[in-house]
Order: sequence, then structure tokens, then C-alpha cells
Amino acid sequence: MIRFYNGKTLIFENNGIVISDDEVHVSGGRIEYVGPARAGVRYEREIDLNGDLLIPGFKNAHTHSPMTFLRSLADDLPLERWLRESCWPNEARLDDDAVYDITKLSILEYLSSGTTAIFDMYNHSEAFSRACADSGFRAVICSALNDFDKDPADIERDYLKLNGYRDLISYRLGIHAEYTTGLDRLKYMVSLAEKYHEPCWTHLCETKSEVEGCISRYGMTPPLFLDSIGFFEYGGGGYHCVWMSDEDIALFADKGLFAVSCPSSNLKLSSGIAPVAKMDAAGVRIAIGTDSAASNNALDMFREMYLVSALQKYIENEPTACPAGDVLKMACVNSALAMGLDDCIGIIAGMKADLAVIDMSRPNMRPLNNLPVNLVYSGSKENVRMTMVNGRILYEDGRFFIGEEAENIYEKVERFIHDKVRKE
Amino acid sequence: MIRFYNGKTLIFENNGIVISDDEVHVSGGRIEYVGPARAGVRYEREIDLNGDLLIPGFKNAHTHSPMTFLRSLADDLPLERWLRESCWPNEARLDDDAVYDITKLSILEYLSSGTTAIFDMYNHSEAFSRACADSGFRAVICSALNDFDKDPADIERDYLKLNGYRDLISYRLGIHAEYTTGLDRLKYMVSLAEKYHEPCWTHLCETKSEVEGCISRYGMTPPLFLDSIGFFEYGGGGYHCVWMSDEDIALFADKGLFAVSCPSSNLKLSSGIAPVAKMDAAGVRIAIGTDSAASNNALDMFREMYLVSALQKYIENEPTACPAGDVLKMACVNSALAMGLDDCIGIIAGMKADLAVIDMSRPNMRPLNNLPVNLVYSGSKENVRMTMVNGRILYEDGRFFIGEEAENIYEKVERFIHDKVRKE
Repeated sequence: MIRFYNGKTLIFENNGIVISDDEVHVSGGRIEYVGPARAGVRYEREIDLNGDLLIPGFKNAHTHSPMTFLRSLADDLPLERWLRESCWPNEARLDDDAVYDITKLSILEYLSSGTTAIFDMYNHSEAFSRACADSGFRAVICSALNDFDKDPADIERDYLKLNGYRDLISYRLGIHAEYTTGLDRLKYMVSLAEKYHEPCWTHLCETKSEVEGCISRYGMTPPLFLDSIGFFEYGGGGYHCVWMSDEDIALFADKGLFAVSCPSSNLKLSSGIAPVAKMDAAGVRIAIGTDSAASNNALDMFREMYLVSALQKYIENEPTACPAGDVLKMACVNSALAMGLDDCIGIIAGMKADLAVIDMSRPNMRPLNNLPVNLVYSGSKENVRMTMVNGRILYEDGRFFIGEEAENIYEKVERFIHDKVRKE
Repeated sequence: MIRFYNGKTLIFENNGIVISDDEVHVSGGRIEYVGPARAGVRYEREIDLNGDLLIPGFKNAHTHSPMTFLRSLADDLPLERWLRESCWPNEARLDDDAVYDITKLSILEYLSSGTTAIFDMYNHSEAFSRACADSGFRAVICSALNDFDKDPADIERDYLKLNGYRDLISYRLGIHAEYTTGLDRLKYMVSLAEKYHEPCWTHLCETKSEVEGCISRYGMTPPLFLDSIGFFEYGGGGYHCVWMSDEDIALFADKGLFAVSCPSSNLKLSSGIAPVAKMDAAGVRIAIGTDSAASNNALDMFREMYLVSALQKYIENEPTACPAGDVLKMACVNSALAMGLDDCIGIIAGMKADLAVIDMSRPNMRPLNNLPVNLVYSGSKENVRMTMVNGRILYEDGRFFIGEEAENIYEKVERFIHDKVRKE
């Protein structure tokens, strides 16, 4: 049993956020108790929060961890050149070993920003799963079916094999995007969703040209077209959701689908700003992700939370849009629900112990006028004192405990880049 | 003499940024030497950079340090309510002691983000100057003349008294804004600028309504109107510069004025996005600032740098807009020039030793594909290993050395808030 005491605990309630003085006791990967100090309990470790804030970890609901090797490799380029000259040829050189190491590098960064689970879309799923499970990190894989995959049946094999892998990995069904996936394969994905009663995911309405292309192909926007072939019959949602029409938004609200917003990446690639406030008002559930380090270029949920709010205040011309508490809930709760992690949604007895400790002694957290607002509007990675996943401390006081030294991981990734990657 | 060795040094050259292996030696507040290791020199301290990156410190070219007590006090409100119910009544309760303590709190945060100098607009200038100088921190005050000041002559007195105060403070002339300063006082400011041959500064074109108000009062935009009365005769510029017309931009380029962009604050208050790329292309010199923690809510130049670039890529619909290297130069060099700190503009022998050490061993800095790009697009406060101002180390490995313990400063600010500040 691990005891967190002498601090504050952030609790999501129906009508908002409560900052309590409760202690939190963790055992066997789960939160066992939330409340006042208990007598007669033996702890293997007692962690004096010393006024710091215990929060449910952030869940990063859209990322591509194996792409982190592309960070800062080719920025500030036109989109087509960036994809054709840097991303695609270099990604083609990735093998399982490289994916394993680069995923671990990404996990270090997730942990340093208080992130306890990711929704990751890439291939090399087995190497990815090993990297996460070896690190003790929680991940939900989303398949990325598209026309360049060799064999669509790999997805069903991975789905059956990796769901539940070492208690930390789960597997959701998805396509890369409508514009990269022909009708036959789309229908195959729908048949898988039907077979397993699974939600379905995709990059969706990320760019204006993507929407125009779908309309020219099928006479419908991507959400409406995908819905028309049964893609969303068991739920799911879209990554990005920047160019959503009113009808698309109504569909998402009606079907209980999730829109995962990735504001940094959408700005940096000149894609646009998702209508988060509008979707939220219509009843769409909003989750938050970073997208990959190739486009973002950080994997930092603090930056995304700030941007979700600040950008909505800008496009709505309304400083009350997307208040801090709502955004915090998107990052901690909605993102988990989007990923199917229904037992990772808060500091409640019985939930998985996926937690972060926020250092309130740093100047950006002072004064202590409003802790959740500080977290969203002035919080940063420097405030993450500890990150715990599944009851295990994987990051504490700047050091990582994922079974392999950070320097070792860095060295392997740098060597891969040196040997295999083409720079400009 | 302090020696930085075994790392990388970031040098701004005319055609871009060079990452060199040079050592940097500091003595008497200045950079004494940049080059290969020297024999026969005695050092009082030798700092092994261990591969880390030495950079010129960021200069925060627009802030209001004494407002940090308002952080997270009243966010997500309509602008008028925020100002009338929270900011103004609470600011009226500030006295010299409170300004001294709150300024020190802000300095802690500047240091933790690698910022070595600030361009600060507020009153209580003497208490502010003491707080900075006692901390060893560099500040440039900008006067904030407006119709609510008791006696405009205070500004000339402060100008003469605080310029050069303890070698760390300088004082520039400025008004709060056209819309808060009547014609008589504007003319008084112009007369001061003429008397001392000083550049003049102001909040400028921050909101659309500000521009409309000026046009209705004077038949001209704020930049053109102020120029028409001689305000910019000796240079200077504007803070924010969101709603700049083509004529305004041409004026700024023609007169060599600076536009200080504050992207976070402009988003969060629904003010807009400054046309930075357009101004830059027209030849306007762009500097970067955070604005106050009341609106931003952080004092973090990493966030501002990222946003300057990412927002321009968005509004220009062009991923090549405002590349990382240009933005880094805005934050390190142009901001210093805007403030009149011509001897704080880079790692060159003879310049002031205002430096920061960037920790390259954190995961967000890996791989090492491109150091300046990492700094701007994935950098964060967690990467600031050390901040040096005027040759003195004021921040190192998470600890502050400003002559007073951080906890002591926090306690005084929290007590002021408890005793004097009205929360919602």
C-alpha cells in the first residue's frame, strides 16, 4: 500500500471540481481508499505531498509515438514537401527495434508531462506494445488501416492478440483516414466493428482539402459518409475534427461520438482551429491529444490544454469560452472515456491508480488563488513532481523508473537516426 | 572568472544561427571570451555543460510584474467584468511593500523560464526597481502615463532617478494607451521625449474597439494619430499591435519602430492575433512579451515563442511562416533592442553575461536533430538548468539565488492576498 498524504486531491464531481484534503491510498494497481487518515494501516511507502496537488493523470487521446524521431527534423516546410521529402521516406526505414526504442523515448516525455495513458495510432503494434508494457506504461492502440498496408487481416490478428496485453495495452479499431482508405477496406473495417461490437476511429476533418476530397468522391462530408456505411455503429470518433459542418457536429452529438482536439499540431501545420466550444455546446464529448512530435513538436498536455481554451476564446471572440475546469476534464476524464479506459477517470476508490503529483512550490503555481485554473493556464512540465501508472511510480523528481535508463534510450535513438535517417 | 565548457553555444549570426563548441568565459558581469579552451586562466567556477546548450537569455519585452497576484483570481469572465470587478479594485489595494514582494515572485518565474530581462509597465516604480535590483535581475521600466495618475511630473522624476539604478534598471518613456490618456497628457509625454531624445512606448492596437475609439476621436488609427503629434520622433513602438492597418505597418517599418507581440494574452482575452509575419515581411522589428500573469496566465517565453510561430502558420495558412530561428531571434535579440539593451544581444565577447543553460538531457529535447528548433517548438521551463543575469547565477537546478528564499516570498504574497484581495 502507498499512502499520499498532507496535500490536496483534485476530484471531478458532476457540477465541477473539488479540491479536497483527502488522503489517497493505492494498492495492487488501483486506488483503494480516498478519505481522511486511517489508523492501523501498514504502508510500504508514505509520500508526504507537502501541500502539493494529486490529480488524475492526463490521457493523451491522439498521438503517434514512433514518429518522435522526426522531431525538429524538417519543420517550417510546405506540407507536401514535409510529408514527401522527410516523413514518408524516413518512416519507411523504421523497423521493430527502432519503434521499440522511439516509443520508449516518447514515454519518457509523456511521463514528464503527467500523462498516464496514450491513444496511439501507428503500425509495428507488437513492438510498440512491448515498449509500453516493459515500461509499465498504459496505452491504447488504434489500428491505422489504409491502402498501403500489406494485409488488412493483420489488424484482426493484432486486435485479438494485443487487447489486454500484459494488463496495460488495449486495442481499438480504426482507419488512418477516409482519403487513404478505399471503399473495400473501409467496408472491411466496418465488418470488423460489427463482428466485435467495437467503436471505430479515424483521422477526421483535419484539413479543408480532406473534406473537399471526400465530398467529391462520395458526395458527403467524411463524418456523414463514414456514418452512411455503418462506421460509427458502435461509437468511436475522430481525431482533429477541425472542419466539422453543423451536420457533422449534430451527428457526433447524436451518436455520442468523441472529437479529439489537437490544437498545436493543427496550428503548426496550418490546418485550422477545431470548433471545440461549438461542438461542446452541441453535446459532443471533447478529448485532447498532442498528435505526433513530428508536427507538434512536443508531447505536452499542458500546452494542449492551454491552447484548447485560449484558441476557443479567440475564435468565439468570447473570453468565457472553454473555461479551465472544462478543459481539465477533457484532458483527464473525456480522453480516458474516448480510449475506453472507463476505470481511469478520476481519484475514486476502485479506479486504476493513474496519477500525477503537481508541485505547487514552483513560482508559476503561485499565488494559490485557484488550483485547477493554475494547472490549465500557467501549469507546465516543470510542475510534474511524480507520475504513477497502474500503481507504479514511473517518474519522480526528474528521474525515470521504466526499467531502462533514459540515456540508454537516447543513445539508441540517436544511433538509429545517424545510421538510417536522411536529413535535409 | 566563470567558465562554461564541454557544451554547445548558440550564436546569432547575420545569416542565421550557429551552434558552436566554443567555451564562454564570464567576468565582471560581462562575457569576456568566446572560443576554444584557454591555457593559464584561473576560474572561480568551472561549469561542465555536459552537452547542454548555452543561449543568450530571453528578454520578455512586455509584462506587468506587480499584477502576478491576480493570477487565476478571475479568469473566463467577460472583459469588462474582469477589469471592473477583479483587476481594478484589487490593484487599488497594492502598496509599495506588496509591489516589492509580488515583483520578486514574478522574477522567480522569469528566471525559471530562462528570461534575463523584462520590459515592465506599471507604477510603484521605485519599489519595483528595488525588488529587481535586490534580486540581481535586469529590468527596463516603461512609464504608464494616463489620466488617472495624480501628477505627470512623477514620470520625469522617476526617469531621472531610476535610469541606471544600481546598474540593473533603466527607464523608458511611455503612456498606458491612447484611450486612457487625454491630449494634454499625450503632449506632455511628447515634450518629455523631445527633451530627452527618448523613444516612446504604449499599449497599441490591442483590441478592435481601441482602434475604433481612436478613429472616432481623432479621425486616425492610434499609430497614425500618435505619430501625428510627434510621439514616435525618437523611436519606440507598441505593445500587442494586433489590429494594425497596412498604413500602420508601413509607418512602423519606415520609422524603425518595434511591435511587441503577446500572443497568449491576446488569445485568452479574445483580442485577436497580431499580423506578425506580415509586419516582419514589411520590415517591422518584432519583439515578444508575455503580458501579465493576470491575463496570460504564465510568464513563460517558451509558450510565447511557440505561439508566435504556430499562430502565424495558422493565420497565413502557410506552414513556412515565422520559422523557429526567426522567432528565437525575436525573443533573444529584438526584444533586447526594443528595450534599449544593446549590450545584451548575444554570446559575444563584451556583451553583458545574461545567459541561460538549456538541459538537453530531457526527453523533449531528443533527438538532437536541430537544437534551435527543439528550443522553440518543444522547449519548456523544464529545460532551464541555469539562468545568469549580469554574470551572477540567479537560478540553478531548480533553486533560486536572489537573496531571499522563494518560500518567504510566497508567504508574503499569500498573506497580502488573504488580507487585502477580494475574491469572487
